[in-house]
Amino acid sequence: MTDDAYMNERPNAWGRWGVGDEAGALNLIGPEQVKRAAALVRTGQVVRLAQPLSNKTPVPRHRSGLQHFMGRDGGDYAAGAKQPGGFQFAEDTVVMPLHIGTHIDALCHAWCDSRMFNNYRQETMRSTSGATRLGVDKMPPAVTRGVLLDLVGLRGRRLEDGEVVSRSDLEACLVEARLQLEPGDAVLLHTGWLAAQQGKSDVDFDSEPGIDHEAGLWLAQQDVAVIGADNFAVEVLPFKPGTVFPVHQCVIRDFGIPLLEGLQLEPLVRAGRHEFLFVAAALPIVGATGSPLTPLAIL
Amino acid sequence: MTDDAYMNERPNAWGRWGVGDEAGALNLIGPEQVKRAAALVRTGQVVRLAQPLSNKTPVPRHRSGLQHFMGRDGGDYAAGAKQPGGFQFAEDTVVMPLHIGTHIDALCHAWCDSRMFNNYRQETMRSTSGATRLGVDKMPPAVTRGVLLDLVGLRGRRLEDGEVVSRSDLEACLVEARLQLEPGDAVLLHTGWLAAQQGKSDVDFDSEPGIDHEAGLWLAQQDVAVIGADNFAVEVLPFKPGTVFPVHQCVIRDFGIPLLEGLQLEPLVRAGRHEFLFVAAALPIVGATGSPLTPLAIL
Amino acid sequence: MTDDAYMNERPNAWGRWGVGDEAGALNLIGPEQVKRAAALVRTGQVVRLAQPLSNKTPVPRHRSGLQHFMGRDGGDYAAGAKQPGGFQFAEDTVVMPLHIGTHIDALCHAWCDSRMFNNYRQETMRSTSGATRLGVDKMPPAVTRGVLLDLVGLRGRRLEDGEVVSRSDLEACLVEARLQLEPGDAVLLHTGWLAAQQGKSDVDFDSEPGIDHEAGLWLAQQDVAVIGADNFAVEVLPFKPGTVFPVHQCVIRDFGIPLLEGLQLEPLVRAGRHEFLFVAAALPIVGATGSPLTPLAIL
Amino acid sequence: MTDDAYMNERPNAWGRWGVGDEAGALNLIGPEQVKRAAALVRTGQVVRLAQPLSNKTPVPRHRSGLQHFMGRDGGDYAAGAKQPGGFQFAEDTVVMPLHIGTHIDALCHAWCDSRMFNNYRQETMRSTSGATRLGVDKMPPAVTRGVLLDLVGLRGRRLEDGEVVSRSDLEACLVEARLQLEPGDAVLLHTGWLAAQQGKSDVDFDSEPGIDHEAGLWLAQQDVAVIGADNFAVEVLPFKPGTVFPVHQCVIRDFGIPLLEGLQLEPLVRAGRHEFLFVAAALPIVGATGSPLTPLAIL
Repeated sequence: MTDDAYMNERPNAWGRWGVGDEAGALNLIGPEQVKRAAALVRTGQVVRLAQPLSNKTPVPRHRSGLQHFMGRDGGDYAAGAKQPGGFQFAEDTVVMPLHIGTHIDALCHAWCDSRMFNNYRQETMRSTSGATRLGVDKMPPAVTRGVLLDLVGLRGRRLEDGEVVSRSDLEACLVEARLQLEPGDAVLLHTGWLAAQQGKSDVDFDSEPGIDHEAGLWLAQQDVAVIGADNFAVEVLPFKPGTVFPVHQCVIRDFGIPLLEGLQLEPLVRAGRHEFLFVAAALPIVGATGSPLTPLAIL
Repeated sequence: MTDDAYMNERPNAWGRWGVGDEAGALNLIGPEQVKRAAALVRTGQVVRLAQPLSNKTPVPRHRSGLQHFMGRDGGDYAAGAKQPGGFQFAEDTVVMPLHIGTHIDALCHAWCDSRMFNNYRQETMRSTSGATRLGVDKMPPAVTRGVLLDLVGLRGRRLEDGEVVSRSDLEACLVEARLQLEPGDAVLLHTGWLAAQQGKSDVDFDSEPGIDHEAGLWLAQQDVAVIGADNFAVEVLPFKPGTVFPVHQCVIRDFGIPLLEGLQLEPLVRAGRHEFLFVAAALPIVGATGSPLTPLAIL
Repeated sequence: MTDDAYMNERPNAWGRWGVGDEAGALNLIGPEQVKRAAALVRTGQVVRLAQPLSNKTPVPRHRSGLQHFMGRDGGDYAAGAKQPGGFQFAEDTVVMPLHIGTHIDALCHAWCDSRMFNNYRQETMRSTSGATRLGVDKMPPAVTRGVLLDLVGLRGRRLEDGEVVSRSDLEACLVEARLQLEPGDAVLLHTGWLAAQQGKSDVDFDSEPGIDHEAGLWLAQQDVAVIGADNFAVEVLPFKPGTVFPVHQCVIRDFGIPLLEGLQLEPLVRAGRHEFLFVAAALPIVGATGSPLTPLAIL
Repeated sequence: MTDDAYMNERPNAWGRWGVGDEAGALNLIGPEQVKRAAALVRTGQVVRLAQPLSNKTPVPRHRSGLQHFMGRDGGDYAAGAKQPGGFQFAEDTVVMPLHIGTHIDALCHAWCDSRMFNNYRQETMRSTSGATRLGVDKMPPAVTRGVLLDLVGLRGRRLEDGEVVSRSDLEACLVEARLQLEPGDAVLLHTGWLAAQQGKSDVDFDSEPGIDHEAGLWLAQQDVAVIGADNFAVEVLPFKPGTVFPVHQCVIRDFGIPLLEGLQLEPLVRAGRHEFLFVAAALPIVGATGSPLTPLAIL
């Protein structure tokens, strides 16, 4: 499935965890990282970082939103459905695009040059099978230190659409928080974008604040395991001319770092904590390119 | 939405957390429970307790299985799809029943006498809205002590289909594990059922080992916050004559305790730990009666 | 399933074809109507009256659009899928709301006073079963004379949003076409609305030209079997103050006449024929409230 | 999109209706065929040739069945849903594989050598777009003479699974019916297979009576426009060793003749008519490889 003939000449982490590896930077979270993260729990407060999922969850125009169908509900009993042994129940089904709301991008989600992370060929992913390599089912859960980088706090205002978050911004946030990045960290970027979309009937997915390529590369080179943000794509939109999703290409495809998009960070920001136990576990959908999930900050 | 005229005369926890409460027994997990659970982390091993989700995940006959559709994949690029700026990506959609694989039952999933937990009326849940009360979106994440009760270890063999797990079995497991239940615990029952289904082309969902009503009531009265098992319904099937899902009725509807079904417990059993940090966070699907999820045991 | 205690005091066709009837006005199409309609075929031209169905087919905001997923396609073979015996194939799946594009409303689609056509109780239609009465599967195909009433031709211009098509307008069209309505006819109304929506990114479903209650009642009393139009709801929008879908209530629920909505009539208008063999056969989805379909005018 | 370099060396109809043609053998139905077919209407009886569609409609194991979800139903009103202006309604959605029940195979459904009918390249069909060539939306409706070839009548018994229907069987049926095939005919084959599956909980899709390659080729060379049957695949299963769906390859891909599968022919057989007006119109789903539909025989 991998092929040595192709040479990825950009900085990358290919081969770092072996030829057949499919976990990428999540390998940076070992037992020590888990233990250190668990030791950060102080107040016992649990903060849910996920947006609610419904047919109102905004999606870009080329995607369909979530549909939720009740297969059996209270109305059916009101209309006289039988209740053998007194038992009544309800069940339901969703039609759900996997990159909706608060979700994680699996390592097969983005690539270039026909090669995915760790030199897997794009032909490993078909309609019939889904992604036989690098699917979301291959991602270990992230249980590690979460580090909140509060760009809104740094700027003293919500970031504007199209505003770049640079490497030096990230470094300034760390100084402010008196923290240093460590291998295996989950870095969460607060830009204020998601909060700004509340109540809008038509969210613009073409313009948002986010990191540029240099900032993404720098984070990757700090050996972070996960990068998340409270926006649509982690990276700044629109892209620098001539580039398309350059951070996705660098971070996911070259370094094997999954992105967490659409995080709801306001409650965490209000809690005033910059490091905490972070837990995120995707649905193990075989061959999927991503998954909605409910990441937690345990304070 | 609640109505005082109805009187639930069976043992119950209605009103215990207030008239408008929708979280039920998950209220038993407070900051102290979280901190105590986090302090149980010793080796830093993370065990994923979820089955893989695919069109091969077994479902009972009256339900449809998961469907996974690639909206864009590697084959499209092999066939010549454009790659502006070098960027290539894939995305996908699932049609997913919410009570499939490893999943949690929300408090609106099961009821009787037309009343749901905490006296909510069944009319609060319709096709158009889903569950406006007690939906899975109202469930706080479970971050608490997990307690593994290993019935297979106790019996020295896999339990048989239809075999009852009684209150005294549960107590014997606790003695064996030198543990006592505490308020807010997540109790996980290992019956061996799921492992026994591996590779079967046609899983029988009508017969399985599990707890009986007395055992369920006893667990509820110990103030556990969650009950999980490695089977289809937590409770023994077939039911005692004249009853239908009596444990669901007692535990979910009377006591507000969510059930975790279809847990994959073999790796946890092999790890040999009976108490650990347990984390389970459902997808926040508004008005849903349950959710697949990936619970974790952090050892 | 029917209940004589309720009395529908408005003009109606309840009981006209028997207590247990579920076909309604389609009963008006007997062998004679079919033969007479077949005899209208002169040029042999076949005109398809359906809009294309895709994710671009406009839907009102409260509905989701069609989704089309390829389960196997050419890209998969380009990526190396096996072809045993040389055979290659493709297959696909839709998620499709049933009232989309060009579709027929079954007799269970609209009602009032908790009673559907022919006194069926609304409790006969639940989430678990769909419509056990008056479902689209109970509708015989419509093979009958089609009569085009060209309001655009009458007015010499496209009708405006909110413009009423009255009984006298319908009569004037008939005079113009030198035709009289006969029992069992399928009447098709050309308002120009659909053509006016072409290329709009955001179709307004709240305002359109269409018939008012009096015109609907008159058509029903002429014993037509089907009423169709090139708009969203056959009837004029917005409704007369104090009423909601009064034509649906009268025509579908009181008289058992199915509505055909979203017809593409321009090619038929261009052909210059006002009577023709009309054929419309819904998908026989058990218990459904409607169905997209491809009606034909055979000239 | 077409490419002259490839040479289809088997008997075929490529180029017969032009380089850019996407309608194939349906071109054989012109106004004369329509008029002659309409003239066959004698009794005015209309026979629906489609199976009911529901979650009970059998599908082969590799496909999912139909799912039907009520988005609003009678139960919701029983539970108290508002009814502004007295109006009540119901609506629903299906998840529907397109090759289910009684359906038509579009010309892009089956191919070989990476080339589809009329030399279209398989790369024209991707996950993102569906079939940009030869999709079901490009198929004109079939309004033509239907010819019933009753193999069950010929044999005096239902055909057995795996039993070949040969060219001489077809010719014998024609003699029996005192008919000759004409260009543009829709040929319907009655094998008894579908009737034999009624009530089976587990239909076997791997074995059935049907035509062999020679019979398929002969039909194609008679210039029929459509071939239908009351079985799963028109052709005999299992295939002759070394071949896979040879009739599909010959008929659809070489000759551009769509197949109609899963026809319900018993009522037509009982009516005793061998030629009639036949009408079949697929849903115009853009880029789809097939479509359920309700073909009609008008007697």
